[in-house]
Amino acid sequence: MKKARVIVGNKKGVFDPEGKVVHSGLARLGYDQVAEVKVGKVIDLQFESGTEDEIRERIDKMCAQFLVNPVIEDYTVEFLD
Amino acid sequence: MKKARVIVGNKKGVFDPEGKVVHSGLARLGYDQVAEVKVGKVIDLQFESGTEDEIRERIDKMCAQFLVNPVIEDYTVEFLD
Repeated sequence: MKKARVIVGNKKGVFDPEGKVVHSGLARLGYDQVAEVKVGKVIDLQFESGTEDEIRERIDKMCAQFLVNPVIEDYTVEFLD
Repeated sequence: MKKARVIVGNKKGVFDPEGKVVHSGLARLGYDQVAEVKVGKVIDLQFESGTEDEIRERIDKMCAQFLVNPVIEDYTVEFLD
C-alpha cells in the first residue's frame, strides 16, 4: 500500500475568498502577525499497487480529468510513509 | 517570513462523505486501484515574525479557537521553505 497526498490550491493571482475570510477571522481574534492565508484542499489517496512513478502518472491523469480545475487551480503530489 | 501549512482532516472513524464521492468518481472513471480516499483542508499561513516554536504555539491556539473542530477533526502542522 502506498499513500499519496495531493494538495490542490488556487493558482497565483486567482482570488481565494476562503483564505480572505480565515485571514480576517484570525485578525479579529487578535492574530495580527499573519501576513497571508491561503485555503486549499488535500486529497489523500491510498493505492493498492504500483511504484511511485506509476502512481504519480496515474495521479496526474486523475487531476487532469477530475480532481483539479486546471483553469484556476494547481496541485502538488507527495508520498506519505 | 515563515510559511506554515496546517492540514485539517476528519478524525479516524468520522465519516468523510467528500472522500467517498471522490473515491466512487475515480472508480467510475476506471481508477480502480485506489483503496481509500480522504479529503481534507489545507490552510497555508504566512507569518511576519516568530521562531518555529512560537509559530507552532500560535497555530495550536488558532486551531483550538477557530480553525479546527476538535470534536470531529484533527490537524498536523508543517513548515514550508
